[in-house]
Amino acid sequence: MRRSVYFLPTTKETPSDAQIASHRLMLRAGMIRQSSAGIYSWLPLGLRVLRNVEQIVREEQDAAGAQELLMPTIQPAELWRESGRYDDYGKEMLRITDRHGREMLFGPTHEEIVTEIFRAYVKSYRDLPKNLYQIQWKFRDEVRPRFGVMRGREFLMKDNYSFDLDMAGAKRSYDNMFVAYLKTFTRMGLRAIPVKADPGAIGGDMSHEFHVLAETGESEIFYDAAFDQVDLSGDPAGLAELQKLYAAAEDKHDVKACPLAPERLRAARGIEVGHIFYFGTKYSAPMGATVTGPNGETITVEMGSYGIGVSRLVGAIIEANHDDAGIIWPESVAPFQVGLINLKVGDKACDDVCMEIYATLLEHAVDVLYDDRGESPGVKFADMDLIGLPWQIVVGPRGLKSGTVEIKDRRSGARQEMSLDSLFSKLPGDLPRGPSLALLEG
Amino acid sequence: MRRSVYFLPTTKETPSDAQIASHRLMLRAGMIRQSSAGIYSWLPLGLRVLRNVEQIVREEQDAAGAQELLMPTIQPAELWRESGRYDDYGKEMLRITDRHGREMLFGPTHEEIVTEIFRAYVKSYRDLPKNLYQIQWKFRDEVRPRFGVMRGREFLMKDNYSFDLDMAGAKRSYDNMFVAYLKTFTRMGLRAIPVKADPGAIGGDMSHEFHVLAETGESEIFYDAAFDQVDLSGDPAGLAELQKLYAAAEDKHDVKACPLAPERLRAARGIEVGHIFYFGTKYSAPMGATVTGPNGETITVEMGSYGIGVSRLVGAIIEANHDDAGIIWPESVAPFQVGLINLKVGDKACDDVCMEIYATLLEHAVDVLYDDRGESPGVKFADMDLIGLPWQIVVGPRGLKSGTVEIKDRRSGARQEMSLDSLFSKLPGDLPRGPSLALLEG
Repeated sequence: MRRSVYFLPTTKETPSDAQIASHRLMLRAGMIRQSSAGIYSWLPLGLRVLRNVEQIVREEQDAAGAQELLMPTIQPAELWRESGRYDDYGKEMLRITDRHGREMLFGPTHEEIVTEIFRAYVKSYRDLPKNLYQIQWKFRDEVRPRFGVMRGREFLMKDNYSFDLDMAGAKRSYDNMFVAYLKTFTRMGLRAIPVKADPGAIGGDMSHEFHVLAETGESEIFYDAAFDQVDLSGDPAGLAELQKLYAAAEDKHDVKACPLAPERLRAARGIEVGHIFYFGTKYSAPMGATVTGPNGETITVEMGSYGIGVSRLVGAIIEANHDDAGIIWPESVAPFQVGLINLKVGDKACDDVCMEIYATLLEHAVDVLYDDRGESPGVKFADMDLIGLPWQIVVGPRGLKSGTVEIKDRRSGARQEMSLDSLFSKLPGDLPRGPSLALLEG
Repeated sequence: MRRSVYFLPTTKETPSDAQIASHRLMLRAGMIRQSSAGIYSWLPLGLRVLRNVEQIVREEQDAAGAQELLMPTIQPAELWRESGRYDDYGKEMLRITDRHGREMLFGPTHEEIVTEIFRAYVKSYRDLPKNLYQIQWKFRDEVRPRFGVMRGREFLMKDNYSFDLDMAGAKRSYDNMFVAYLKTFTRMGLRAIPVKADPGAIGGDMSHEFHVLAETGESEIFYDAAFDQVDLSGDPAGLAELQKLYAAAEDKHDVKACPLAPERLRAARGIEVGHIFYFGTKYSAPMGATVTGPNGETITVEMGSYGIGVSRLVGAIIEANHDDAGIIWPESVAPFQVGLINLKVGDKACDDVCMEIYATLLEHAVDVLYDDRGESPGVKFADMDLIGLPWQIVVGPRGLKSGTVEIKDRRSGARQEMSLDSLFSKLPGDLPRGPSLALLEG
């Protein structure tokens, strides 16, 4: 994409109403625009990141055997009366009356509607287990929306729902998602700690929140140092064992009761980005989601639900990956892999070399943003650091005299002169989309 | 995907409340489930088609130079007061009051919000033209929702908005979208006729509806036979010239006034799937969307908007592609390219060969649905015809005795015996996703 035509309204000014780094940086980097309190438009750069995050979540759900569907945003109140939650839910539910006077609502979650779908079609124990997920916009009418997309009212969530015949099956589904979540966050370059959450009366200890570690995190997390040594490429069963390690949020952590030796206790700030829990027959019983068992008996299915805050993750990734100059995207979610800076637009040598690099990267399916504007080098450097693409290729008249361009690694800040021959030789054919451009370093 | 675990609730029964073929077939093929009047969940098979349609729309918008963003579903009423449409819009607008008593609405369209975004950031004539699009769920509270996804209340739409400095620029943007629309529908295997629509007072004849031809179409379209000879791979400027050809919907067609010689007049049923129009400064003037011109003057931008009914298209494609047995997907939007039928699950030879074919297709990134259930051949044949995958590979004990399987082309119904060697030799390496499997025929 050429910067000169790209709709990317960056700004130097720090927005006065943004209290945290990710909110400030998303506004400054032209990723989002507030439409009303807690409701945002995702501008092109922001949407690219959101889609990359969404796709990683999707791939890990698919890999774990969950199946994607899409439920509507607007739901009928009657379903929520069946589960008994309609009157209880409170003011966070956006309630709507349609033109015929029917009570509707903008879904804050989808347990009722997925249970209705399940009970309509699944009749036999042979069809279990099932795990259905969606990635859909939800609405919670927060009394004080703030922190940008971290606590918005309209937000994108991955939510899924498992259906099992018995508690043992439900536990397998739970463990499966537990492991999938660890893999999902790791692929985004995040360290996530699974913290036991309060599951209420049902389900014993089968409820975990996943907190992404970031210095600017909203709450303090205490956890076993063993988490720091985990190999996430390990076997899934082994990863599920991580549930046994100690981890607690500050409101649950009791220094005196903590079973860990002091030298094994770690403390860090965390941001909650996922929550999984088992809730048994809480919805299936009142809503009649049953199957026929092997002996003809009626079995009420055991359910669990699993959520990831997809739009929130974009903010959390920035909280965990930024410096004073701006965002530092992990390659897996970066809106473009490479930023190409032409220091002297209008200079034939600079223009020609930039165009050759730009075309070559596109040919190799490397996402590249080419800053071809007539702005000063200082403006371009600051802008490219702000939007945080992993790699910068800087082309200027001085370097070209000796046949070189500069490569900058945004994360380390390391810069390196590289000959054009060497640059092009490092772009072999058939690179997959979003390759590790670490090869540019050598 | 294995059919035995796939959440694909097909049914033989014809739903009594579905009046048109696409609605009936989408329900029977387990693509959608009604949640409330005009509001549907998209089950896994349906969602796959919806995403394929969406992706074609996206690629053609990107190719035309439009840039994707995403605006929220919930909009503030105050913006619609600025344009003057809030009170005028009527009961189709789903109006909402939030917990703080603020008036909101579920967007039926997004002119106001995109104009607000534009005016916030774009200040100079140098930044024009701009063309911004989104693919987002919308809500129109139809008094009588019907025909399934063809006239739903919550529906997926691609809408974009062009911003130009003057009428000549607006015309270029319009022509650009006109051509992009023809290409989009063609890629879905549809024939679409652009019909002049009533643009109201503004814009002269710059408004077209695109009607997909289907025998079961909702209205009659009269058009120049020259449309039947159009080469859509032709040059874009040439395609824009198609605006000059005669085409009219039944309510506008006047037999006496029609300029066409009778032998050039064609009549066919059509389904409206797109609408483009130029509306000048209708929103930019009241909302103050202006840029500074080359001489420092203030210029109110010229706008157009362009819509494609993405979820409606799924229904329209079925209306144009089905027979008595079920749906016949064009390859470009098919949920899977191949349906693999094992006629005798439990027979070792059948199971082994099916598994080898299944694994080979997956290796080559061919989307395949493997019917590995213990159902009768009749049930499997009917089910596979119903869901309409372009190719069927049928593996049975009788054929295997002579080393052959049967390939069926769903559209033509043609069947062909093929040796296993020949089948595998026709699956070369590195097939792209969604290849034309016509190679299976030879």
